[in-house]
Amino acid sequence: DGFEGGSQSERVPTGIKGFDELCGGGLLKNRSYLVSGNAGSGKSTFSIQYLHNGVVEYDEPGILVVTEEDPKNIRENMKSYNMDLKKLEQHDKLAILDSQSAKVGIPTDEEYVEVDPFDMDSTLKRIVEIKEDIGAKRCVFDSTTSLGFVSDTQKQLRINFLKLSATLSAIGLTSLLTSEVLDKNRMSRFDMEEFVTEGTIRLYNERKEGVRSRSIEVYKMRGSDHSKKINPFEISSKGIEVHPKEDVYF
Amino acid sequence: DGFEGGSQSERVPTGIKGFDELCGGGLLKNRSYLVSGNAGSGKSTFSIQYLHNGVVEYDEPGILVVTEEDPKNIRENMKSYNMDLKKLEQHDKLAILDSQSAKVGIPTDEEYVEVDPFDMDSTLKRIVEIKEDIGAKRCVFDSTTSLGFVSDTQKQLRINFLKLSATLSAIGLTSLLTSEVLDKNRMSRFDMEEFVTEGTIRLYNERKEGVRSRSIEVYKMRGSDHSKKINPFEISSKGIEVHPKEDVYF
Amino acid sequence: DGFEGGSQSERVPTGIKGFDELCGGGLLKNRSYLVSGNAGSGKSTFSIQYLHNGVVEYDEPGILVVTEEDPKNIRENMKSYNMDLKKLEQHDKLAILDSQSAKVGIPTDEEYVEVDPFDMDSTLKRIVEIKEDIGAKRCVFDSTTSLGFVSDTQKQLRINFLKLSATLSAIGLTSLLTSEVLDKNRMSRFDMEEFVTEGTIRLYNERKEGVRSRSIEVYKMRGSDHSKKINPFEISSKGIEVHPKEDVYF
Amino acid sequence: DGFEGGSQSERVPTGIKGFDELCGGGLLKNRSYLVSGNAGSGKSTFSIQYLHNGVVEYDEPGILVVTEEDPKNIRENMKSYNMDLKKLEQHDKLAILDSQSAKVGIPTDEEYVEVDPFDMDSTLKRIVEIKEDIGAKRCVFDSTTSLGFVSDTQKQLRINFLKLSATLSAIGLTSLLTSEVLDKNRMSRFDMEEFVTEGTIRLYNERKEGVRSRSIEVYKMRGSDHSKKINPFEISSKGIEVHPKEDVYF
Amino acid sequence: DGFEGGSQSERVPTGIKGFDELCGGGLLKNRSYLVSGNAGSGKSTFSIQYLHNGVVEYDEPGILVVTEEDPKNIRENMKSYNMDLKKLEQHDKLAILDSQSAKVGIPTDEEYVEVDPFDMDSTLKRIVEIKEDIGAKRCVFDSTTSLGFVSDTQKQLRINFLKLSATLSAIGLTSLLTSEVLDKNRMSRFDMEEFVTEGTIRLYNERKEGVRSRSIEVYKMRGSDHSKKINPFEISSKGIEVHPKEDVYF
Amino acid sequence: DGFEGGSQSERVPTGIKGFDELCGGGLLKNRSYLVSGNAGSGKSTFSIQYLHNGVVEYDEPGILVVTEEDPKNIRENMKSYNMDLKKLEQHDKLAILDSQSAKVGIPTDEEYVEVDPFDMDSTLKRIVEIKEDIGAKRCVFDSTTSLGFVSDTQKQLRINFLKLSATLSAIGLTSLLTSEVLDKNRMSRFDMEEFVTEGTIRLYNERKEGVRSRSIEVYKMRGSDHSKKINPFEISSKGIEVHPKEDVYF
Ligand SMILES: Nc1ncnc2c1ncn2[C@@H]1O[C@H](COP(=O)(O)OP(=O)(O)O)[C@@H](O)[C@H]1O
Ligand SMILES: Nc1ncnc2c1ncn2[C@@H]1O[C@H](COP(=O)(O)OP(=O)(O)O)[C@@H](O)[C@H]1O
Ligand SMILES: Nc1ncnc2c1ncn2[C@@H]1O[C@H](COP(=O)(O)OP(=O)(O)O)[C@@H](O)[C@H]1O
Ligand SMILES: Nc1ncnc2c1ncn2[C@@H]1O[C@H](COP(=O)(O)OP(=O)(O)O)[C@@H](O)[C@H]1O
Ligand SMILES: Nc1ncnc2c1ncn2[C@@H]1O[C@H](COP(=O)(O)OP(=O)(O)O)[C@@H](O)[C@H]1O
Ligand SMILES: Nc1ncnc2c1ncn2[C@@H]1O[C@H](COP(=O)(O)OP(=O)(O)O)[C@@H](O)[C@H]1O
Ligand SMILES: [Mg+2]
Ligand SMILES: [Mg+2]
Ligand SMILES: [Mg+2]
Ligand SMILES: [Mg+2]
Ligand SMILES: [Mg+2]
Ligand SMILES: [Mg+2]
Repeated sequence: DGFEGGSQSERVPTGIKGFDELCGGGLLKNRSYLVSGNAGSGKSTFSIQYLHNGVVEYDEPGILVVTEEDPKNIRENMKSYNMDLKKLEQHDKLAILDSQSAKVGIPTDEEYVEVDPFDMDSTLKRIVEIKEDIGAKRCVFDSTTSLGFVSDTQKQLRINFLKLSATLSAIGLTSLLTSEVLDKNRMSRFDMEEFVTEGTIRLYNERKEGVRSRSIEVYKMRGSDHSKKINPFEISSKGIEVHPKEDVYF
Repeated sequence: DGFEGGSQSERVPTGIKGFDELCGGGLLKNRSYLVSGNAGSGKSTFSIQYLHNGVVEYDEPGILVVTEEDPKNIRENMKSYNMDLKKLEQHDKLAILDSQSAKVGIPTDEEYVEVDPFDMDSTLKRIVEIKEDIGAKRCVFDSTTSLGFVSDTQKQLRINFLKLSATLSAIGLTSLLTSEVLDKNRMSRFDMEEFVTEGTIRLYNERKEGVRSRSIEVYKMRGSDHSKKINPFEISSKGIEVHPKEDVYF
Repeated sequence: DGFEGGSQSERVPTGIKGFDELCGGGLLKNRSYLVSGNAGSGKSTFSIQYLHNGVVEYDEPGILVVTEEDPKNIRENMKSYNMDLKKLEQHDKLAILDSQSAKVGIPTDEEYVEVDPFDMDSTLKRIVEIKEDIGAKRCVFDSTTSLGFVSDTQKQLRINFLKLSATLSAIGLTSLLTSEVLDKNRMSRFDMEEFVTEGTIRLYNERKEGVRSRSIEVYKMRGSDHSKKINPFEISSKGIEVHPKEDVYF
Repeated sequence: DGFEGGSQSERVPTGIKGFDELCGGGLLKNRSYLVSGNAGSGKSTFSIQYLHNGVVEYDEPGILVVTEEDPKNIRENMKSYNMDLKKLEQHDKLAILDSQSAKVGIPTDEEYVEVDPFDMDSTLKRIVEIKEDIGAKRCVFDSTTSLGFVSDTQKQLRINFLKLSATLSAIGLTSLLTSEVLDKNRMSRFDMEEFVTEGTIRLYNERKEGVRSRSIEVYKMRGSDHSKKINPFEISSKGIEVHPKEDVYF
Repeated sequence: DGFEGGSQSERVPTGIKGFDELCGGGLLKNRSYLVSGNAGSGKSTFSIQYLHNGVVEYDEPGILVVTEEDPKNIRENMKSYNMDLKKLEQHDKLAILDSQSAKVGIPTDEEYVEVDPFDMDSTLKRIVEIKEDIGAKRCVFDSTTSLGFVSDTQKQLRINFLKLSATLSAIGLTSLLTSEVLDKNRMSRFDMEEFVTEGTIRLYNERKEGVRSRSIEVYKMRGSDHSKKINPFEISSKGIEVHPKEDVYF
Repeated sequence: DGFEGGSQSERVPTGIKGFDELCGGGLLKNRSYLVSGNAGSGKSTFSIQYLHNGVVEYDEPGILVVTEEDPKNIRENMKSYNMDLKKLEQHDKLAILDSQSAKVGIPTDEEYVEVDPFDMDSTLKRIVEIKEDIGAKRCVFDSTTSLGFVSDTQKQLRINFLKLSATLSAIGLTSLLTSEVLDKNRMSRFDMEEFVTEGTIRLYNERKEGVRSRSIEVYKMRGSDHSKKINPFEISSKGIEVHPKEDVYF
């Protein structure tokens, strides 16, 4: 492939095996990136692993905004990758903002809860507060489809998306925003998320002759050279590992 | 294929021949899974067999919510698989909640009837009551298209879906939610069900050279490794049997 | 192909040559089936032949609800298959409910006329009356697209469809409901009829190298095993004859 | 191909060379047929030739309803096929009902003019009058897209279509109704015309390797056997001639 | 190819090299034709060349209605084909009606300006006046997408299209109306323009193996035989030249 | 390929290596061009490089309107191509109009800020002022999707697009307007931008066998001959370089 490597900009390594070398060392600091893929393609795994590595490898605290999952299930899921989120939370290195329970109307005993899940500004305010609390440097917003709940028109949706990504950036967070994809040729649910973020990481899980296999692509990354190849990856008890030397054909 | 096998999480086996070994021993406890497929692909068979096995093999009582079928027909259909639902009901191991007759306006003599089929909360309340009654551990909601009846917008639909799946989870049920599919590349009717459930089991019934054949895939399963293969299965007088060793090409 | 054959459920044979053996001896009693296909694929022929055979072979009177055709033309068309509907009507073995003339505003001298073609309940009431009159056991509703006329939303349409199929079932009729199809990969006009009926019989009339040829498939049949093959059939002066031993490729 | 030939029903020959033998001798009397095809596929030519032959070969007067063309242009166009419509009109064997000029707001000196082109009933009344005047047996309505002008919803459109076709039938006309098609796999503009007419004649004009060629198919014909082949045809100074013995591949 | 050649109708030659022989000598007098194609396919070039040739070769003055371009740019563009429109205008042989500047709200010093670009009737009135002024015989309306601006519904759009084409015809102009196309299998922007005009000239500019090449087809021409082939053409400093002997494959 | 080369019109060279020779020396003066492509295809890079070259190679000041990005990020991104925008700004050779911050509601310390990002006329007025200030000759509007924010209907959108492109032209700017594309066969987001601009430059970034590669095409250029080939290009620390001699196949 032979791309030239990273630029001089400050890099935030994901610490995900085989990934950072695809994009010159990591993400650009204080920018918001899209992580998009089908259901089960690994968006949450990738994103939370980025937060987890942030804490354990780079001592950067992180915020995880969960819009449509139960934080308890997430903690349990991550255990199967040998990541202990609870521990990070207890050391104030990770905060999980539960944005689901209010929406669904189910009682919760989470520490960080979003009370009004249908108001964009209250969510952002909550993130700012938590950032102050734990000194977060990284953020994951999983998933941005929830922005559809706070937007009545396509225009509003786009502005809310911009607002989210620009605010996280402005307050000094390097963020991953996940997006649901329905079709292998698209990059996002609303067909605009890839245009208003600083970069797009695309996860695939395509069927070929009765078997699914996973691959990942740095589709776009403003201000940085990166690999043009689609690379196979694996999810195992070690979480995600990218195999940058192998080829993918589909 | 060689996936690593199940994680340590507590498993709820479906007892369906050849299926549990595809996903490390069964479903994760107290979670909601999507079972999706075309008309006639076997969603109801799979789901009810899961309930039936729950009772006869694992002594776990179950609830079957039927939104658009006549419970009497279901009992008769299951007889052709040598499953006697009536008997399970008489022993208070199975409750069939008839959510159709009120909707359609036809008199019914079912024991469990949903009186207001157009109110999400009343349905959930009814399920909670029945759960208490019979000590259910498993639940099947067949089919979730009926959520469209209680939702005026896409947003509401998504929130109702979340509400259903989160509530079943919260009250301690391990559930299957069926979803109708129209196209072999899609996973659900509303293109969002696979994103808001903990896993997706996809049933196929594709035509090839003038013959249809059945296959099944664990498409997504949060917190668990699983087979990446699409496996052939059969429906016969023994119900569903999956053949995990054979290959499917389409 | 080698499917196991019929279950123990009571069967209603269509008497259509080569068809009943595809599905273990016939339809399940007191259930509603979809017959779907393109224009000219043979839906009306199949359905009326089912009624005709009902009378002459099994002494089961039948009701034919015609929503968008002139009963006089239907009688003439059936003559070309050597079926004399008039005679059956005169012996009170067949009733044709003219649901078109009121809709179109043209005078009619039919015996059974639907006065308000835009009210679902009045139609059902009319069918119940006729059933009493002639002791009908079989019913054909041709075509269900007319349900669109009495439904303002997708939800209403679905409920009306359920209502129609459940009511016919409840009053003791074994019924065929026809549905218009536009595309060879779809099963119905509104993409939901196949989900809310007990089975789907799909008629094809596909073009291949400048010639059309006919084929038929039992796509779905709850509670019964059936052939998985798509079988060629013919329409001739003997009406429809299915050729279950031949193959179809498209 | 070897279809069995015509039924006993009374036939109305089109007199178009090579066509009547495709469908057992012609159209069934007093029924309405769809003639559909792309722009320039020959719908108007076919239909007017049917009227012209009606007069000169079978002494059956005809009515031509023109909804979106200038009658003067039509007369001139037909001259290029050596058909002299003016002469037929002068002998009261043909009436052209100008339904365009009122719609467009341009003065006209046509004998038969539709004054209110946005009212379905006034059009039908006008046709009935003309039928009385000249004793018409045949009718052409070119094109039915104009029914969209008098219909606010899909339902209304379908009912208007039914009304048109049933009324023409009821007053004793054998009719051709033209329909615009956009895609080679469709049969009509509104995807329902082929279902509510007694038959469909489909004209194709497909591109293959940089050349267009014409072909015709009797796609549907209730009450009659017909050829299942798609047959090439030609338009020349003799009008349309079908070549029933040749093959078409596309 | 061997089509029989032109009919006896009076012809208006375009004077475009290689084109008139495709359709028996030219357009039929006093009729309106569609010229459709993708952006940059040559619609404006073809149409203006038709006007230019009208003046310099056949002494027929012409009107050019420009709805979304700056007349000054058009004059400059045409110079690159060695056509001097200014000169024709100065001799009152060509009138350019500027229908853009009012729409866009930019001052103009054009002689012929449309003051109310959102009123169909005022546009037609303006054309009639100009026709009187310069004795025009030819007209180009570039482009008809602007009719969308004066039409609120599909019905209105179609009637406005008919009105435009019928009025130009009625006042004695032989006209080209341009239409934007998005897809190689379509013929117009609104999927109806080809049905309500007397003929359709289709320009293609398709990509094949990394190169675009141009071709042209007489897709429809009422009242006239014409070539059935798609012919390559070129745009150069001599404007458009059609190569009727060569083949196109796509 | 062998196109004839440029016309006599005055040219504005982009200075992008390998590009100007594709279109006879550059853009036509005082016209507006579309630059369209997928996310990450290089639209912003191409456009800003055009502005940068304008200053450093041709001493033509430029305006960059940024609708959905942070100017600070853009300056940093361009550094990775060794372009120092800040320096150009300090010498009043480049003005960046920040149209994002007001929209998103984030404080900014940019010199040029658009206060009302939802009013087309205020934006145009702002551009006119800046043009006066710095004597700009070139302009980039990135991206035109933002016009969707100021347009309620398709008609308004089209008129706003025309207004933007015609105004920039009228005040003496040679401009690039970027447009987001979702599908390799389309040219713009709203399927009309390519019709109302003077030319279209299309950037591709297509996947082939697991690798993406970049290519560029002059798709349309009114008033000028240009290459018909799709040419590969590269983005590196030198910015964009087009390779006009190589071939592309997709
Ligand atoms: N312990 C594990 N070992 C291997 N694969 C796993 C494990 N846990 C989860 N997975 C896989 O990861 C998928 C879930 O990934 P996730 O990050 O939740 O996807 P997304 O967020 O894109 O929906 C599951 O569907 C499963 O295939
Ligand atoms: N006794 C049986 N033996 C074999 N196949 C059967 C039997 N009963 C039903 N089937 C098959 O199962 C299908 C119905 O499956 P079902 O679970 O109702 O599907 P779904 O709920 O996805 O519509 C029928 O269409 C038929 O093909
Ligand atoms: N006597 C006949 N012999 C052979 N084929 C016939 C005869 N009568 C009708 N057909 C065929 O049957 C078709 C009509 O079938 P029909 O049952 O009305 O279809 P549908 O109801 O699906 O539109 C006709 O289009 C014709 O092809
Ligand atoms: N005299 C003629 N000779 C040969 N072909 C002709 C002649 N006149 C018309 N045509 C062909 O017939 C087509 C018009 O057919 P028409 O019946 O008007 O089609 P439609 O009504 O389907 O739009 C023209 O596009 C042309 O190709
Ligand atoms: N002088 C010229 N020499 C060669 N080709 C030219 C010349 N001028 C314009 N063209 C070509 O013609 C195209 C413009 O054609 P035009 O008639 O404006 O198309 P349309 O109106 O269909 O958008 C340009 O994109 C360019 O490819
Ligand atoms: N320094 C660099 N070296 C090589 N490629 C780069 C460099 N900087 C950015 N890129 C590439 O350029 C892309 C961004 O291009 P950009 O002009 O912003 O695209 P667009 O505006 O079309 O979204 C990135 O996705 C990356 O692939
Ligand atoms: Mg996830
Ligand atoms: Mg089911
Ligand atoms: Mg029918
Ligand atoms: Mg016509
Ligand atoms: Mg043009
Ligand atoms: Mg950009």
